Amino acid sequence: MEKSFDAMVSSFKEFVKRIKQYEEALAVIYWDLRTGAPKKGVPGRAEVIGMLSTEVFRMSTSTEMEEYLGYFTKEENSKLLDNIMKALVKEYKKDFDRFKKIPEEVYKEYVILTSEAESVWEEAKNNNDFDLFSPYLEKIVSFNLKFIEYWGCKSNKYDTLLDYYEPGMTVEKLDKIFKELREKIVPLVSKIKVSEHQPDDSIFKKDFCIKKQDDFSRYILEKMGYDFEAGRLDESEHPFTIGMTPGDVRITTHYYKNLFSSALFSAVHEGGHALYEQNISADLNGTALCTGTSMGVHESQSRLWENMIGRSYEFWKCYYPELLKVFPEQFEGVSLDEFYRAINKVESSLIRVEADELTYNLHIMIRYEIEKALINQEIKVADLPRIWNERMEEYLGVVPTNDAEGVLQDVHWSGGSFGYFPSYTLGNIYSAQLLNAIKRDIPDLSERLSNGDMLVIKEWLADKVHKHGKLLTPAEILKSVTGEEIEPKHLVQYLEDKYTQIYKL
Amino acid sequence: MEKSFDAMVSSFKEFVKRIKQYEEALAVIYWDLRTGAPKKGVPGRAEVIGMLSTEVFRMSTSTEMEEYLGYFTKEENSKLLDNIMKALVKEYKKDFDRFKKIPEEVYKEYVILTSEAESVWEEAKNNNDFDLFSPYLEKIVSFNLKFIEYWGCKSNKYDTLLDYYEPGMTVEKLDKIFKELREKIVPLVSKIKVSEHQPDDSIFKKDFCIKKQDDFSRYILEKMGYDFEAGRLDESEHPFTIGMTPGDVRITTHYYKNLFSSALFSAVHEGGHALYEQNISADLNGTALCTGTSMGVHESQSRLWENMIGRSYEFWKCYYPELLKVFPEQFEGVSLDEFYRAINKVESSLIRVEADELTYNLHIMIRYEIEKALINQEIKVADLPRIWNERMEEYLGVVPTNDAEGVLQDVHWSGGSFGYFPSYTLGNIYSAQLLNAIKRDIPDLSERLSNGDMLVIKEWLADKVHKHGKLLTPAEILKSVTGEEIEPKHLVQYLEDKYTQIYKL
Repeated sequence: MEKSFDAMVSSFKEFVKRIKQYEEALAVIYWDLRTGAPKKGVPGRAEVIGMLSTEVFRMSTSTEMEEYLGYFTKEENSKLLDNIMKALVKEYKKDFDRFKKIPEEVYKEYVILTSEAESVWEEAKNNNDFDLFSPYLEKIVSFNLKFIEYWGCKSNKYDTLLDYYEPGMTVEKLDKIFKELREKIVPLVSKIKVSEHQPDDSIFKKDFCIKKQDDFSRYILEKMGYDFEAGRLDESEHPFTIGMTPGDVRITTHYYKNLFSSALFSAVHEGGHALYEQNISADLNGTALCTGTSMGVHESQSRLWENMIGRSYEFWKCYYPELLKVFPEQFEGVSLDEFYRAINKVESSLIRVEADELTYNLHIMIRYEIEKALINQEIKVADLPRIWNERMEEYLGVVPTNDAEGVLQDVHWSGGSFGYFPSYTLGNIYSAQLLNAIKRDIPDLSERLSNGDMLVIKEWLADKVHKHGKLLTPAEILKSVTGEEIEPKHLVQYLEDKYTQIYKL
Repeated sequence: MEKSFDAMVSSFKEFVKRIKQYEEALAVIYWDLRTGAPKKGVPGRAEVIGMLSTEVFRMSTSTEMEEYLGYFTKEENSKLLDNIMKALVKEYKKDFDRFKKIPEEVYKEYVILTSEAESVWEEAKNNNDFDLFSPYLEKIVSFNLKFIEYWGCKSNKYDTLLDYYEPGMTVEKLDKIFKELREKIVPLVSKIKVSEHQPDDSIFKKDFCIKKQDDFSRYILEKMGYDFEAGRLDESEHPFTIGMTPGDVRITTHYYKNLFSSALFSAVHEGGHALYEQNISADLNGTALCTGTSMGVHESQSRLWENMIGRSYEFWKCYYPELLKVFPEQFEGVSLDEFYRAINKVESSLIRVEADELTYNLHIMIRYEIEKALINQEIKVADLPRIWNERMEEYLGVVPTNDAEGVLQDVHWSGGSFGYFPSYTLGNIYSAQLLNAIKRDIPDLSERLSNGDMLVIKEWLADKVHKHGKLLTPAEILKSVTGEEIEPKHLVQYLEDKYTQIYKL
C-alpha cells in the first residue's frame, strides 16, 4: 500500500532531520577540534569525521532521497506542499543533482585530488613555489569545467559555480557591480593614500590583558543581543562561527596581548554571523533551511556589525568611555576622535584577511576577475602570478615581492571553491543596503546607537532577515526589505561619506 | 562466492570500528554537554545522542553482527582467531546476547520505565518521599528478574547481574569478601571514633584561589604522567573521566573556593582512570577492547592514585613544600604531619560520595546486601528504608534522619544498575593488591615517592594493567601480576596499618 501524502511529508521530515543531526554531531566535533582538542586524538577524530560525513553524503544521494524528491516534484504532490516543504524539496534536490550528476568515479577522483592539493598548496605557500601548486590547480580547473558540463552551463560557465554560493548571482550582475566599485573605490583609496590626515593606530600596540579583552568582548556581545545561553565564546587560531542549532551557536576569537582591536572586532564580526543563526524561526529547525540563505547574506550580517556598527562613531560614543574604564593607562590621552579614526585606518596591503573595510573589496575583485577568466578559459594557470601582481599594482598600488604573499595566499582554490570569493563583497553591498533600510525604519537610530542601544538593530535584523533562514532567497530578502535588487551604490556612498570625513578629503 | 576468512576478519574489524566511531562521536558530545554546552542547545543535542546511540544499538544487534558472530564461533573459524579477535568476538557476543535475548517490546518498555524512574527518583529525593519512588523500583526489580531468566540464571540470580560489570564475580566470592571487610573495618571505625587523636581538617576551609588550585592540580597530574597532549582538564559539576581514544582521554574536576582538597583529589582520582585509558595498547584501538577490563579494575586505578599514593605520607613529603609555595598563608603553621592526618580524616557520614577511604566500603556493603536480597526476593522494596537505616546504625553508627540522605541518595537503582555498586569496593581491594605488587617490584618505592617520582608507578601500571585493555579479564590481570585471586586481606592490612598510625590506636 502506498503511503499517504501526509505520511510521506512526515517521513521525509524525519529523514532530513536525521541528516541534520549527523551534521550537528559533526559541528560539535569540528568546534572541539578547533578550541582545544588534544592533538594526539586528532588522527582518530578525523576518521570519525570522515565516517559521519560519508553518512551525510550517502543519505543526501540515496535512493530513498531520490524517491522522496521524485514524489514531491510530481505535479499533483508538489502543488500540495506548504512553503517550507517546497523550499526544502528544492534545497535537497539541488544537492542531490549536484552530486548525482557527476559520475561517482569522477567525483571520488576529485575528492582525492583536492585533499592532496590542499597539502601541496600549503607546502607551495611555505616555500613560495607556485610551480609546485600549478599542476594541481590546472587539474582542479579542468574538473570544474567538466562539472559545469554535468550540471548544465548557464549563459556564462562561471554562473554555474556562482549560483551554488549565491543563488541567482551571475557574471552579468557581478561585472556591473565590480565595475562600479572599481571606478569609485580605486580613486578613493588613491586619495586616502596621499591625505595628510592619517590616523595613528600605534595606540593599539600596547599591553592589553587578555582576560580584560575577553571580558570586554563578552560585554559588547551581550549588548548586541548575542544570547550566551544559546552559545559560547572561546579562543581559536582563526575566528569562526558555528551554528549547531539556533539554541547553540558558538563563536571564537583570537586574542593578541600586544594588539587591541583584533580580538574585539573578530568577536563582533562572528557575533554578527551568530545572531543570524540564533534567530532563525523555530519551524525551520531540523531542516536544511535552518541556516543563512547564502554566504553573501551571512557575510552581510558579520560586516554590518563589525564595520558599520562596530566601527561607527556613534557606537564608540557610548562604549569608548566603558573601554577607558577597562584600559585607562593604555588609552590615556587618546580622544574618542583619535580612537575612532584609528579603528578605521585604511592601508593598501598585500594580504586579504588583514585588509580594511575599504580595500577589502579590491582584493576580492582581483580574485573574481581571475576566477571568471580561468573558468572561461581566457587565461591559463601559468599566467596567474603575473596577472595577480598586475592587478594588485593597478587596484591597490602595492605589489607582492613573492607568490606566498600574492597568488598563493588563500586556501580556497586548492579546495576547488571557485565562485565563493564574490560572497565577501556581496556581503558588504548587502550590508550597506540593509543599513539604509534600518535607518529608514528607525529614524532615531543614530541617537539610540549613541546611547548604546543595539538591541533595536538586532531585533530589526531578526525580523527582516534572520527568521527566514534559507526559506527566502537572497534576492527575495533584499527586495522585501529594501525594495531594491542588489545595488552597489549604497556601499559606495557609505564608504565615500565615511572615509571623506575620516581622511578630511 | 563466500568471503575468505581473512576478508571476514578485516570486514568485521571495519564493522566494529564503525561502532566505536559512533561511540567516539557520542563521547565528544557527552563531554561537551557536561563542560559548558549552552543550555538552549540541550534538548536538540539529546535527540542527536538518541539517534547516534540507536545506531550503535542497531549495529550491535544487527543481522550483520549476528552473521559475523555465527561465522567466528564456528569451530573451524574460531580456532584460527588470534587473541585479539577471540576476545573481540566474545565481547560483542556478550552484548549481542544480552540485548537479543530480551524481546524487543519488553526492552523498549524497560527503557521507558527507567528513564521515567530517574525523574521520579529525583523528585522523590528532593521531597524525601520514598513512597513516590517505590512503585518504580518494584517494577525495575521485576524487569531485572525477568532479564535474569532470559539471560540465564547462574547459581545465584544476582551473579548474572554482577557478571556484567565484573566478569567472573559471584555472590559466593563477594559474601566472603564483605564478611572479612565487615569483621575488620567495623571495629576499626569504632576504635577511630573514640580515639583522642582526631585530625583537624578545618585547615582546608579557607580561601583558596581557584586558578591556583587548577595550576596545582595540573602540576600533580603532569607528575603522575598524565599526558596533556592526549587529554585535557576542565571543570564540571561532578568530576568524571571520558576516554574517546587513547589519544584523547579527558578529565574534569570541580573547584570549591572555600575547600581545598576536594578538587585536587578529584583530579588525582580521575587522573588514575585516565592513565588507564591513555596507556592501552595501540593494537586494541578501534575495538571494544580499547577500554578498562571492568568497572572494578578501573576503580582500582583511580583509588590507588587518589588514596594510596595521593594520600600517602611519602607523596606529601615531596609535594607539601610545593603546596606551601602556592598557598603559604592558608597553610601557615600547619606541619606536614598535621596536613597528612587531615587529608586522611575518617568520619562516619551518611552520604557515600562524601565518605573517606575507610568507611566508603561500609556504604558499599549496605548496598550490596540490599541488592542481593532484593534480586533473590528475600526482602521487599517497601522494607528498604528500614533495612537501610538498620545497617547504617550497625556498620557506621550513624542513622539518616530522612530517606533523602538515606536510601534515596544514589541514582543507580533508578536506572536499573543492579550489580554495579560492588565494583567500588572491588576497586579498593584490587588497588591494595596492586600496591603490594608494585612494592615488591620496586623495592625503593617509598624513597622514590618521597622524591616525587610517580612515573615509575605509572609505567609499572601501564605495563602490567593498562596496556591489556579489555583483552584480559580482571582475574587474569590480577593473577598475572600478583599471583593471587582477589584477596581482601591486603586492603584490610593496608587500612589497619595506615589508620592505626594516624589515629595512634
